[in-house]
Amino acid sequence: MAVYTDVSFEDLEKLLADFDIGAPRTFKGIAEGVENSNYYLQTSTASFILTLYEKRVRADDLPFFLGLLEHLAARGIACPLPVRNRSGKQWTRLAGRPAALFTFLDGLSLRRPEVSHCAAAGAALAALHEAGKDFALKRPNALGHQGWSELAQACIPRAEEVEEGLSELIASAHAELTARWPIGLPEGVIHADLFPDNVLFMDGGVSGLIDFYFACNDAYAYDLAVMLNAWCFEPDAAFNVTKSKNLIGAYARKRPLSRAERAALPTLAAGAALRFLLTRLYDWLNHDPQALVRPKDPREYSKRLRFHRKVKSPSEYGL
Amino acid sequence: MAVYTDVSFEDLEKLLADFDIGAPRTFKGIAEGVENSNYYLQTSTASFILTLYEKRVRADDLPFFLGLLEHLAARGIACPLPVRNRSGKQWTRLAGRPAALFTFLDGLSLRRPEVSHCAAAGAALAALHEAGKDFALKRPNALGHQGWSELAQACIPRAEEVEEGLSELIASAHAELTARWPIGLPEGVIHADLFPDNVLFMDGGVSGLIDFYFACNDAYAYDLAVMLNAWCFEPDAAFNVTKSKNLIGAYARKRPLSRAERAALPTLAAGAALRFLLTRLYDWLNHDPQALVRPKDPREYSKRLRFHRKVKSPSEYGL
Repeated sequence: MAVYTDVSFEDLEKLLADFDIGAPRTFKGIAEGVENSNYYLQTSTASFILTLYEKRVRADDLPFFLGLLEHLAARGIACPLPVRNRSGKQWTRLAGRPAALFTFLDGLSLRRPEVSHCAAAGAALAALHEAGKDFALKRPNALGHQGWSELAQACIPRAEEVEEGLSELIASAHAELTARWPIGLPEGVIHADLFPDNVLFMDGGVSGLIDFYFACNDAYAYDLAVMLNAWCFEPDAAFNVTKSKNLIGAYARKRPLSRAERAALPTLAAGAALRFLLTRLYDWLNHDPQALVRPKDPREYSKRLRFHRKVKSPSEYGL
Repeated sequence: MAVYTDVSFEDLEKLLADFDIGAPRTFKGIAEGVENSNYYLQTSTASFILTLYEKRVRADDLPFFLGLLEHLAARGIACPLPVRNRSGKQWTRLAGRPAALFTFLDGLSLRRPEVSHCAAAGAALAALHEAGKDFALKRPNALGHQGWSELAQACIPRAEEVEEGLSELIASAHAELTARWPIGLPEGVIHADLFPDNVLFMDGGVSGLIDFYFACNDAYAYDLAVMLNAWCFEPDAAFNVTKSKNLIGAYARKRPLSRAERAALPTLAAGAALRFLLTRLYDWLNHDPQALVRPKDPREYSKRLRFHRKVKSPSEYGL
């Protein structure tokens, strides 16, 4: 968590000349988000987040990301709304980077969500899926199952450095998931990274969904499978079926799950675990010690992957 | 600039139970300050900064730092005020670190202050010196001239890696400054690090002074000498005598400078340049590549040191 690109007051003044949002009162770099630089800006009228896109987000993808946020916000989803400048543009360039200004959302993310938070977050995911249905642009899931081969090949030769048996786990899970990956499930725009970090709560309810920079088109149920991994394991690595039951239940009340989606959940959940295992492992093995971000421990996800591979039926998720 | 210690929402809730400041609305790690972790906190009543003290600030020094801020704020200085908890304590422990909560100051720091900002900052420094006069606690300046020998000895053997002639510059400047260091100048509490980063402006005026973690007892004029280094050089390394004249002038209108203080300025300014050269060089040479902070270029201060050593009379600062 760090700020990569330094924005001076003078840069900010130049930027704000293009907006009609009042005079700056506070401007601070915040430690948040993937590999972007984010600033908290308070003006005489409201609060905002200024995001500068570093290498990980490509400018070509901004029309999808920013268009999606505008689309969702217009449909009542509490997500950051890109503020258009006086010329009607959603993004501009600042300090050599593509940059966008967003409305600020109140709320706090939880480290240890309770059952009720899991339910609220599940319902918010369903609302997001419904609201995104008529969004016109498309973006493939670069980290979907077709993208895993390359990552797996890059990681397997050195996986044993991290954990004994990890190469074999990745190779066999990858082969098995490729063979049985479900096709034809209902698809649309998914968040693809709805971890507790990316859900803001206030007074017990969801007050905002943030960090849409992995959003893409893929199976809706895969988004739910990501959440089973991210929300329903305890610090001691045990799966909490009450959390899972409540998360899926609240989701399904807003967007009912088909029989095929339910049946696919164990495979999708194992796939989501493999995806985060692979990206974390890759970052772990290829970490630049000069970088300002500390890589996350991939072993959390090898445990989750092993769990999902043993699941015999969706009922083990409380369905 | 980074956040070192992670504070969860759950840690925050525990902390806030000891305060009477409302319910949290926003809580974000901010990239600011020396080597502390800082969080921006907005509650239903007001905004705050939560600081967790990492290794650089010793808990033993907190009564001085926090007591000073309370003392200064009570005398009208716009500085962060430590918020006492329900038991009347100025600091507590959080996530294994000493931690304190402060009132939040609006305003933005400038990268390229103009002449008028230099004058406003000079006046703010004088007001700070006046307000600190009756503060009871004392703290020696660990980075004052007595502290340079050790740093110089640690840096000289490898200084040539950074710049040709740097070992000789440090050795000769150190010897000369030690020989002629002024004694008996008016002393009191100084900020000791009043760089543009640490002065917030709003509507052209100073709205806050921050980051008091180098504050100590030393010659007032040395604080002014730090500012001559930090505020009065242009990006092309040229000294801007108009800025210096206005900064010193505005200071002296609030706290007149004695003849001895004026005469000592070239030596004090060279000393301040040597101090920042040495600490930056030390950090540069001993930088842990795993650290989340990028060291600052020491060569900026070798140029400034060379400039001050050539100054023949205080009139070259516009006096």
